[in-house]
Amino acid sequence: MSNTNTPLILITNDDNIYSKGIYTLTKLMSTIGHVIVIAPEKNHSGMGHAVTQDIPLRISPSKIFHKIDPSIESYICTGTPADCVIAGKSCLFNKKKPDLVVSGINHGKNASISVIYSGTMAAALESTFEGIPSIGFSLQDFDMEADFSHIETYVLAITKKILQQKINTRYTALNVNFPKKQKEPIQGIKICKQADIFWKNFLIKKKNPKNQNYFWMSEQSQQKNKKQDTDEWALSHNYVSIVPCQYDLTAHHMINDLQNTFAL
Amino acid sequence: MSNTNTPLILITNDDNIYSKGIYTLTKLMSTIGHVIVIAPEKNHSGMGHAVTQDIPLRISPSKIFHKIDPSIESYICTGTPADCVIAGKSCLFNKKKPDLVVSGINHGKNASISVIYSGTMAAALESTFEGIPSIGFSLQDFDMEADFSHIETYVLAITKKILQQKINTRYTALNVNFPKKQKEPIQGIKICKQADIFWKNFLIKKKNPKNQNYFWMSEQSQQKNKKQDTDEWALSHNYVSIVPCQYDLTAHHMINDLQNTFAL
Repeated sequence: MSNTNTPLILITNDDNIYSKGIYTLTKLMSTIGHVIVIAPEKNHSGMGHAVTQDIPLRISPSKIFHKIDPSIESYICTGTPADCVIAGKSCLFNKKKPDLVVSGINHGKNASISVIYSGTMAAALESTFEGIPSIGFSLQDFDMEADFSHIETYVLAITKKILQQKINTRYTALNVNFPKKQKEPIQGIKICKQADIFWKNFLIKKKNPKNQNYFWMSEQSQQKNKKQDTDEWALSHNYVSIVPCQYDLTAHHMINDLQNTFAL
Repeated sequence: MSNTNTPLILITNDDNIYSKGIYTLTKLMSTIGHVIVIAPEKNHSGMGHAVTQDIPLRISPSKIFHKIDPSIESYICTGTPADCVIAGKSCLFNKKKPDLVVSGINHGKNASISVIYSGTMAAALESTFEGIPSIGFSLQDFDMEADFSHIETYVLAITKKILQQKINTRYTALNVNFPKKQKEPIQGIKICKQADIFWKNFLIKKKNPKNQNYFWMSEQSQQKNKKQDTDEWALSHNYVSIVPCQYDLTAHHMINDLQNTFAL
């Protein structure tokens, strides 16, 4: 889809460019905008906001999305999700900024504290630093063959709302999580806060053939604190959760107390 | 230093365990607490909140800090700064939580938007998820032989204030940045907000010997917007900046507008 009023949409993800989630997202976005895809060649889940500083990046054109539309440009990038957005803005648009950056659809939810570790959301946030609206989409289903059919209308509806710019989300990345497909249809959309859930990470010790220790990051167990206004509550009640995310980490509520504590 | 009331302090960084910054920090912390160091074997600057999920970690004991005190335990970790904190909490304290996590002293400032990319601050934030106070220290000097002598009294004074727990910083990571050594002494401490500065990243295209393109992440240029209550203003006026950081990314001010936008 392309004419002078067609929005430019940059698409990336963190699973890798070959995943079903980004294929689904590209198929949907191509019905409402001119899309360019640049995504990692390998899985970068859990990479947070890592950027590649010490080695060069390779960026190679691909035909992965030509089954959807032969005019879709796409690029395989050796870097992280945040690298892909920086590269996309820098190289692929002939100095025209994208109107929107979308990231995902992630295989696995990025609710609560996961947003901190998420490559999907790092890519979305990267674009907001310079005022490009962005949306990270994630599905509560880690299966690489996950069923996205129940969320397609929601992905399109949410994206169209943001492109209409009835609300200024230029400096805000929307963190959109969808429940896994269930027998009952999705109940609707909830605007949420990030649930304050503490994931207990721990390491499991093993021995290699040389009798040296090595360690695996374990499965995470969860202290549940799912208040009704949080993303975790919404997902567990079969709602779509939307959390607006900002890149200002300042704990503003602590400023006065710290000023008193450090008064010299 | 060690007795039953001695605080347990976990030390890490993102430059690597051999850097002058973590050596300085360990020397200082060992005068006020029982310290355990676990830090990356190689540079992880710019790694954000990456965690290692798909490969195992190696963690090896070291004698690097025995010059300071032969009783100092330290470990070289193949993972990221956030991995080091998870490993430290999980393996090194015999189920006793550290009283404080300190990260740094980073060679290079982590003010304004850099906090998002910073491995130093990711390590600090990781501990706050479960209520362990933390401080990330950074010096506005990238030189690997940087002079830390002008900040030592500040590092100790700030750490002691937090250990005294006159203020609850359990869920807040302090982002402490120090100006590079100048002729004039440091002017004092400012409690600050994260400056809203947009770093312009871009890629520089080159050709390899096979005539294939590759790309370097370029030097960052900066749109300056240094309001007087920000970390960037404080640093540029020779003050120590302290920004309290939180892991809740929710843009709370956007909730109502989004609820109206998405009302169905």
